[in-house]
Amino acid sequence: MIQTELAADLQLKWDRMQQAMQQTRADGCLLTVDVNIYYTTGRIYSGYFYLPAEGTPWFFVKRPNGLAGDQVIYIRKPEQLPELFAENGLKMPRKLLLEGDEVTYNEYTRLLNVFQPEETGNATALLRRMRCIKTPWEVTQFRISAKKHAETYAQIPSCFRPGMTDVEFQSEIEKVMRRNGSIGLFRAFGANMDIYMGSILAGDNAECPSPFDFALGGEGVNPSCPIGANGTLLKDGTAIMVDMAGNYTAYITDMTRVFSIGKLSGFACKAHQTSLVIQQEIQEIAKPGTPCAELYNLAAGIAQKEGLSDYFMGTKQQAKFVGHGIGIQINELPVLTPRSKETLQPNMVFALEPKFVIPGIGAVGIENSFLVTETGIEKLTLCEENIVQLY
Amino acid sequence: MIQTELAADLQLKWDRMQQAMQQTRADGCLLTVDVNIYYTTGRIYSGYFYLPAEGTPWFFVKRPNGLAGDQVIYIRKPEQLPELFAENGLKMPRKLLLEGDEVTYNEYTRLLNVFQPEETGNATALLRRMRCIKTPWEVTQFRISAKKHAETYAQIPSCFRPGMTDVEFQSEIEKVMRRNGSIGLFRAFGANMDIYMGSILAGDNAECPSPFDFALGGEGVNPSCPIGANGTLLKDGTAIMVDMAGNYTAYITDMTRVFSIGKLSGFACKAHQTSLVIQQEIQEIAKPGTPCAELYNLAAGIAQKEGLSDYFMGTKQQAKFVGHGIGIQINELPVLTPRSKETLQPNMVFALEPKFVIPGIGAVGIENSFLVTETGIEKLTLCEENIVQLY
Repeated sequence: MIQTELAADLQLKWDRMQQAMQQTRADGCLLTVDVNIYYTTGRIYSGYFYLPAEGTPWFFVKRPNGLAGDQVIYIRKPEQLPELFAENGLKMPRKLLLEGDEVTYNEYTRLLNVFQPEETGNATALLRRMRCIKTPWEVTQFRISAKKHAETYAQIPSCFRPGMTDVEFQSEIEKVMRRNGSIGLFRAFGANMDIYMGSILAGDNAECPSPFDFALGGEGVNPSCPIGANGTLLKDGTAIMVDMAGNYTAYITDMTRVFSIGKLSGFACKAHQTSLVIQQEIQEIAKPGTPCAELYNLAAGIAQKEGLSDYFMGTKQQAKFVGHGIGIQINELPVLTPRSKETLQPNMVFALEPKFVIPGIGAVGIENSFLVTETGIEKLTLCEENIVQLY
Repeated sequence: MIQTELAADLQLKWDRMQQAMQQTRADGCLLTVDVNIYYTTGRIYSGYFYLPAEGTPWFFVKRPNGLAGDQVIYIRKPEQLPELFAENGLKMPRKLLLEGDEVTYNEYTRLLNVFQPEETGNATALLRRMRCIKTPWEVTQFRISAKKHAETYAQIPSCFRPGMTDVEFQSEIEKVMRRNGSIGLFRAFGANMDIYMGSILAGDNAECPSPFDFALGGEGVNPSCPIGANGTLLKDGTAIMVDMAGNYTAYITDMTRVFSIGKLSGFACKAHQTSLVIQQEIQEIAKPGTPCAELYNLAAGIAQKEGLSDYFMGTKQQAKFVGHGIGIQINELPVLTPRSKETLQPNMVFALEPKFVIPGIGAVGIENSFLVTETGIEKLTLCEENIVQLY
């Protein structure tokens, strides 16, 4: 069932996972959550992926019908696993890793009953640590997403017509995204991180605090989804921040640009320029070994020096990070936050998003996706960075 | 923080939950999952909702900033709860209900450590049982969704242009949906139920088995989201099944219509008519007290009598249900499946979707959303039900 182009990539991931398991004396790792199944098999299926600390992986599939390949076994329920392990000469694990931060309590305890391991460990933590260092194939996927993401953004001015609301503008951009190959779906880690195709914030809606752990908020169109555009009319003097998903492959790039109706105030333009300075200064120092906290502190320091601290990453509610890892989910490791103990490593991919919210005008700033190279960081999302006047 | 129009509705829900808790001697119920927070408070926030078996509910909010109201308390982490309970004269629960089928294992065990209850129970099971009987306000929300859903479907023929693929057609329909007020987001219960705005299936893509527990499958545009449209060219003799979400309020209606390019074969038309007959016969017998299994068996029996069993609810992979409850999530209780032990109750709302997949042509059939009344069932999604020829 493995696609040929992926075979080497998957082997590399399995090797790294096995190395990590051996270091902690784990005997095996059972995965069932969609993003981890995709990461380790190159597709989504319903069922389980089992990787022993040594040897080859097993694919226990509930659905879809018709998958075939080495060590693909059809299964109805997890209670069949011990028998299937025995039939296939697979040892039951003494120490088993399960997705403790992703699988529900009842599903997890069901798996504990099935395996009765002497010891358990957290497969979510392992996978998030593995997933933050991207493989060569994953990097090519980011490059495809980044290119289509930038091509879509270049078409954004043609989506605008005078008199539109933010929601109408967004619906036109979404159509362009879909025509350019956007998958639609957009995955996030953790509970209550619902979002739809990204976010457009115009005018004072940018100040509206959100329940979600994204950089900025917005009221949304319904209290059941309180994020992003809320029907604001796009009128003269408004900043429009477009932060729509780069979901053109399973690997999501993240990119924000600012558009305006008419000219924005000098203060808003200065804040936007400060975002570009922050990005530039971070590009100059960031390389393998740079502490993520240092990148946040550098950004916050520049904002403070410019007298913009009260507007940095929000006003009524301020996000305490200036960037985050990206991948199959929009919020992977590392996080560029003052509390971070992580450093940049080669082949991490992260979004850097210094932003300011200016009352009466809207949000300004920049966001790009960067690959950590051996010597520095490389910007993947290439597109005009100044504020583009739509009308 | 409660909207006035919702106050009576929420009180009704709390009363019913308290009655159910008292029957099982539960002392309180702590909710944190988005759909349950929305159900019990009318909005999404990050934090906890606590309902004691007697008395008034408490709202422990992490984000967003600025919510105010009776018994709204800001909180950083669940470990503060015991102190906040004590400060507010709230008794710690001896038997506590937690969302065992929704909250992750690590979050659940963290809450167990915080509360150390003598006994626990499943809040997910309680909430799913409560949520399947809709309140008057919820029924009005369904009526709003159903009306906009039907209005959108009436515009579908204008979205088509010759030479389109299924994905291009879908992107035009999505734009109409958004312009008509679709929230975008579309929630499902359970793991691995990712979907984006609904599904369009054209030609043989309708036969493609999916990992998900939806009625039909489809290959999708990427193995990371294997469901729905796959880029099929909409050519002569093709059936196009449109099953796009009715997400115009938090309460989602479900509705499927079939379109064609040119005329479909007599066999496909006969199968479509059979779906309409199944719907008609179910409408004639369904009322409070009717077993859900009986509705499935009636549908499957008609399919068999017409010699269509091999095409009923799929070919290579056949769904074992013909309908399902709808609400804040697309797959609520009850399920119209032969294994069901449930009966219809007044104010249940469910989707009925008898469908057939015809190799070489595509999927045909019907889906509508129904409200169970005191005496029968009422169709909410009113729109042409015959196959509409686009070109």
